[in-house]
Amino acid sequence: MRITVCRKEHFNAAHRLYRPDWSDEKNDQVFGLCNNPNFHGHNYELIVRVTGEVDPETGFVIDLKYLGNIIKEKVANKFDHKNLNLDTEEFKNLNPTAENIAVVIWDILRAELDTKYDLKVVLYETERNFVEYPAD
Amino acid sequence: MRITVCRKEHFNAAHRLYRPDWSDEKNDQVFGLCNNPNFHGHNYELIVRVTGEVDPETGFVIDLKYLGNIIKEKVANKFDHKNLNLDTEEFKNLNPTAENIAVVIWDILRAELDTKYDLKVVLYETERNFVEYPAD
Amino acid sequence: MRITVCRKEHFNAAHRLYRPDWSDEKNDQVFGLCNNPNFHGHNYELIVRVTGEVDPETGFVIDLKYLGNIIKEKVANKFDHKNLNLDTEEFKNLNPTAENIAVVIWDILRAELDTKYDLKVVLYETERNFVEYPAD
Amino acid sequence: MRITVCRKEHFNAAHRLYRPDWSDEKNDQVFGLCNNPNFHGHNYELIVRVTGEVDPETGFVIDLKYLGNIIKEKVANKFDHKNLNLDTEEFKNLNPTAENIAVVIWDILRAELDTKYDLKVVLYETERNFVEYPAD
Amino acid sequence: MRITVCRKEHFNAAHRLYRPDWSDEKNDQVFGLCNNPNFHGHNYELIVRVTGEVDPETGFVIDLKYLGNIIKEKVANKFDHKNLNLDTEEFKNLNPTAENIAVVIWDILRAELDTKYDLKVVLYETERNFVEYPAD
Amino acid sequence: MRITVCRKEHFNAAHRLYRPDWSDEKNDQVFGLCNNPNFHGHNYELIVRVTGEVDPETGFVIDLKYLGNIIKEKVANKFDHKNLNLDTEEFKNLNPTAENIAVVIWDILRAELDTKYDLKVVLYETERNFVEYPAD
Repeated sequence: MRITVCRKEHFNAAHRLYRPDWSDEKNDQVFGLCNNPNFHGHNYELIVRVTGEVDPETGFVIDLKYLGNIIKEKVANKFDHKNLNLDTEEFKNLNPTAENIAVVIWDILRAELDTKYDLKVVLYETERNFVEYPAD
Repeated sequence: MRITVCRKEHFNAAHRLYRPDWSDEKNDQVFGLCNNPNFHGHNYELIVRVTGEVDPETGFVIDLKYLGNIIKEKVANKFDHKNLNLDTEEFKNLNPTAENIAVVIWDILRAELDTKYDLKVVLYETERNFVEYPAD
Repeated sequence: MRITVCRKEHFNAAHRLYRPDWSDEKNDQVFGLCNNPNFHGHNYELIVRVTGEVDPETGFVIDLKYLGNIIKEKVANKFDHKNLNLDTEEFKNLNPTAENIAVVIWDILRAELDTKYDLKVVLYETERNFVEYPAD
Repeated sequence: MRITVCRKEHFNAAHRLYRPDWSDEKNDQVFGLCNNPNFHGHNYELIVRVTGEVDPETGFVIDLKYLGNIIKEKVANKFDHKNLNLDTEEFKNLNPTAENIAVVIWDILRAELDTKYDLKVVLYETERNFVEYPAD
Repeated sequence: MRITVCRKEHFNAAHRLYRPDWSDEKNDQVFGLCNNPNFHGHNYELIVRVTGEVDPETGFVIDLKYLGNIIKEKVANKFDHKNLNLDTEEFKNLNPTAENIAVVIWDILRAELDTKYDLKVVLYETERNFVEYPAD
Repeated sequence: MRITVCRKEHFNAAHRLYRPDWSDEKNDQVFGLCNNPNFHGHNYELIVRVTGEVDPETGFVIDLKYLGNIIKEKVANKFDHKNLNLDTEEFKNLNPTAENIAVVIWDILRAELDTKYDLKVVLYETERNFVEYPAD
């Protein structure tokens, strides 16, 4: 009786997509407006999906309050109201695309959760652009 | 050519999370505010996902009006404007967590649907807390 | 240069619509399913609208973090995960219709806010049923 | 490190569900109001899900601007503000159910995308009725 | 103590914007894609706003179930799954723009409601295009 | 027969709230996390509300495609994927609070629209924080 429980949180951050080893022209060509040197930003919406057995005693797969607190402490507090490129270790040398942010968040949460749980993260950069990691 | 068709319905209900065989202290510790003895409530949003072959004659996997009627008759009418703990047989002796509600709904709908269909339910307790059963 | 700033919060509560001085028949006739004696519940969404001049120094009408904290302390903490009829002073003798809840919340917040501000509350009982007080 | 990236677009169209080889009675019985001879319509919301490896150079699975442009050129421009039954080749002889529209869109996009990508489409006919193709 | 209560309903319809007394060129120039001779369609979302005094006995401005039924019987049933231009008396000789549809709906509902109520309708043609009548 | 027509657009931008003439301590005290020197960002949602008479010939108050184009050219293109503090003339010396951004956008659009129209803008900084200018 495996079931998936999901918790939605959010954070607001600035970022810029570019590679320092590329020319300005190539950065503009590949990353377009997202390569604005002065950054732009997003309201990121994060859905964390945890899959496991329902504990017959509590009726919970995982306490969503506990899960929410982990997400807030380990992810939202780290990235909220930050410049991902300048203010975080994770993206000092990693392009903060939605894909890479999702993988970084997954790695952070994976280390916090019991291995009996499967984990997936869905990250909305905008209402129209979002990613899921890992893929089904 | 298997395809999944989804139908969204809703019901509003009161509930309380607790175990009668636990002390008040333990219930508070595990279930927190959700253990309010006088109940609280939610607008539950339910998405029913049915997977099957497209019928080449109709172009339907399943008639969504028919599916919607089953959900309304067998699930929404049973739980809408009810106290899950006090007014329903299903949760007389089962803690009405989102996980358990989803499994109960799945069991109800599974009995109504032809075995040629696969079935999954997604239940939103709030916009930020939701569950899927069964897990992928 | 008067401008309106809005802050959205939420709380989940149980309630029952009925009048103790009416017969069961009359309560059922007027309040229908909302008169379930064992209560039902909702995810209430609350939008608080504060109108005033923009402070030229800060660029704020009112600090939304401060406004959010007031709403949480004075409204959400009071009603969240509660039974409005049984657990609150405000609705001991007042039918907790969306209209009455909105007026009660407005009274609470009006007492907290400087008189230089105009105040309106919008309360969603469900996505489809909501009220605004006071009317324009 | 396979990841799924998603792009949401929309188009507004008229359609009618019916089979010319069926009697009016049978069309009404099976398709109900959707068989209105003068058509009705929807705001279709389309989510295109592309799964692949993250390119370590760009941090992209696929450039979402590029994907968005393909969807607009090949799907939205073809169906937006059209009568699916009368104005499109695809549904001249195919009943434009949500299921069939999803499969047609998948076929169109599959031909545009590199075979290294997996593809899924989610099509919302209304907020309450939607389909996913292919099923998981 | 005047308060506004709101009820959301929806209907799906086909329409075409054009004037029969104009040339095709002028219709195309003014109405663009909306002048497709074979029609297109929308999921219309309708919010009906009724303002009045709270009845001290019931705590209601108006029974939202009663209001919902009027909207369904008099508006949704009339327009849902219809071609506004071809299937309705109201738009036989009136261009079914969002503005005109809102005014027509307001006229229908105004005749149904007690004159002690103020009435406003909000009509979403799409999530991005909507109208309110009458203006504040 | 005055009616309000509304158009929703969006832009994604970085910003920082602070006053250069204040100490760091005062900026932190007043603007909190929003005073991050490296900026943060938002997906701004903008609703432009235009009120006027319905043109009896077209059934339009204003052509929403025309209005949408003005918003895109004059507002979204100016602010989208920009750092409001560093990349725009408007906020070189004006704190980019939601209130101030709304007033700036109103000024821009007011200059573009015929004086026969009334104008209001609603700006969502996040789903939970938004402003309307001018107030009713």
